[in-house]
Amino acid sequence: MAERDRAEVVSEFTTERLSVYLRCLGWLESQGQTTISSHELASRFHLNSAQIRKDLANFGELGIRGVGYNVAKLKRHLITTLGLDHTRKIVIVGAGNLGMALADYRGFHGSGFSIAAMFDSDPARIGMSSRSGVPVLDRAELPRLARQIRIEIGVIAVPAEAAQQIYDLLVENRICAILNFAPARLRPRHAVKLRNVDLRINLEVLSFFLKSSEEQPHRRT
Amino acid sequence: MAERDRAEVVSEFTTERLSVYLRCLGWLESQGQTTISSHELASRFHLNSAQIRKDLANFGELGIRGVGYNVAKLKRHLITTLGLDHTRKIVIVGAGNLGMALADYRGFHGSGFSIAAMFDSDPARIGMSSRSGVPVLDRAELPRLARQIRIEIGVIAVPAEAAQQIYDLLVENRICAILNFAPARLRPRHAVKLRNVDLRINLEVLSFFLKSSEEQPHRRT
Repeated sequence: MAERDRAEVVSEFTTERLSVYLRCLGWLESQGQTTISSHELASRFHLNSAQIRKDLANFGELGIRGVGYNVAKLKRHLITTLGLDHTRKIVIVGAGNLGMALADYRGFHGSGFSIAAMFDSDPARIGMSSRSGVPVLDRAELPRLARQIRIEIGVIAVPAEAAQQIYDLLVENRICAILNFAPARLRPRHAVKLRNVDLRINLEVLSFFLKSSEEQPHRRT
Repeated sequence: MAERDRAEVVSEFTTERLSVYLRCLGWLESQGQTTISSHELASRFHLNSAQIRKDLANFGELGIRGVGYNVAKLKRHLITTLGLDHTRKIVIVGAGNLGMALADYRGFHGSGFSIAAMFDSDPARIGMSSRSGVPVLDRAELPRLARQIRIEIGVIAVPAEAAQQIYDLLVENRICAILNFAPARLRPRHAVKLRNVDLRINLEVLSFFLKSSEEQPHRRT
C-alpha cells in the first residue's frame, strides 16, 4: 500500500492507539522487559488484544507466534511509523493561560517535538516567556519566523472568535498540521491536517463510569 | 447485561467514541437533520461505519434498517448512557496556568458539568478567581467543601511531584472520578476511576500525518 493510501486508511483512532502502544512499550522497556504478547499487552494496559493484533498487522509482521512482540523492535518501528525519529518545530498562537500551560507541558518537549515560540497580539504579553523559556513574540512576526525556520505544527490557543483567523494565518505560512484547542468549527483547507482537541470527552468518560457505578445494586456509601 | 459488567466490558475507547457520536448528533440536530444512517454518519465525520454499528449495538436496537438512526432519539439515549442527564460537580486542584485555563474551558461548563471551585496552596493565588468566575480556595478547605456539597470529579492540575498527594486527598474526600493532567504515574485505588490526559498523543497523530505526506512521491512545495 502506498504511504498516501495508508495515511488515508489508517484512522485517527488507530493512530491514537499506536501512540498508546508506544507509551506502554517505553514503560515495559524501562522495566527491563524484552518481549510481550498481545494478550499480556492487552491485560496489563486494559487494551483489547484482537484490536492490538489488528492495529499492528497494518504495519508488517512484527510479532512471533507463541513468543509475542520484541519490545525494543516494536517500539523503534512505532517511532518511525509515527514520524518521531526527527524533531518537528511547533509554534503556539495565544499566550494566555492555555498557551502558557501548553508551552510548559512536559509532553510537548523533547523526543520528536520542540516549541520554537509562542505568538500573541497583546503588547502586555509580548516579550514575556514561559517558565520553560519559550518566548512570546509579536503575532505580526510569525511570517518572518516561518521563513527562517521550518515550522511543522501550529497550535491554536486563542478564543473561539479568533480561531479561524489564526488557522488561516498558519496555513498561509505553510504550516500544514494544526492542533486546535478553541471550541470553534474551522473551515478546513486542502492538504492541511487539522486536529481539534476536545477535553470535554475526558469528563464524559468519567461521567459514564459514575453513571455505571450509581446503577450497581450495592452503592458505595 | 448488568450495568456493572457493561462498565467493565465497554472500553474507554468505546466510551470516547460515544462522546464523538454525541457531538456529531448534536451538530446534525442543529442543522435540522432528523435521521442518519451509519454510513452517512461515518462518511460525514470520518468515522468507520462498521465500528459505529458495533458501538451502538451494545446499547440496544436504535437503528431502523434502511432508514438509519433517529437523530434526536439516539442523542437522548447517548446523553443518558453517558450519565449527562444531571449536573456533576467538579473541583480543580492547582490554579496555575493549566488550572486557570481548564476553569475557563468552555467544554467544562454547562450541560452535565459544573466547576465548583479551584484549590491551591499558594497564598498568592488563594482568593483569586478565573475569568469565568471560578474561585480559588485554600487547599486545606477541600475536605470542608466535600462535606458541604457532593463533588463527583476531581481534576489534578498540579506539577508531577505533587500529583500523588492530590490524588490521595481527592480519594480521601470520596471523589471517585479523577482526571489527571500531571505527567505522573499514580498508584490507583480500588473503585476509583482515574483518567490520565496525555496531550502529546495529539502531536503524535499530527506527526504521523506529516510523515505520511513526506513519503508521497509529489511533495508539496
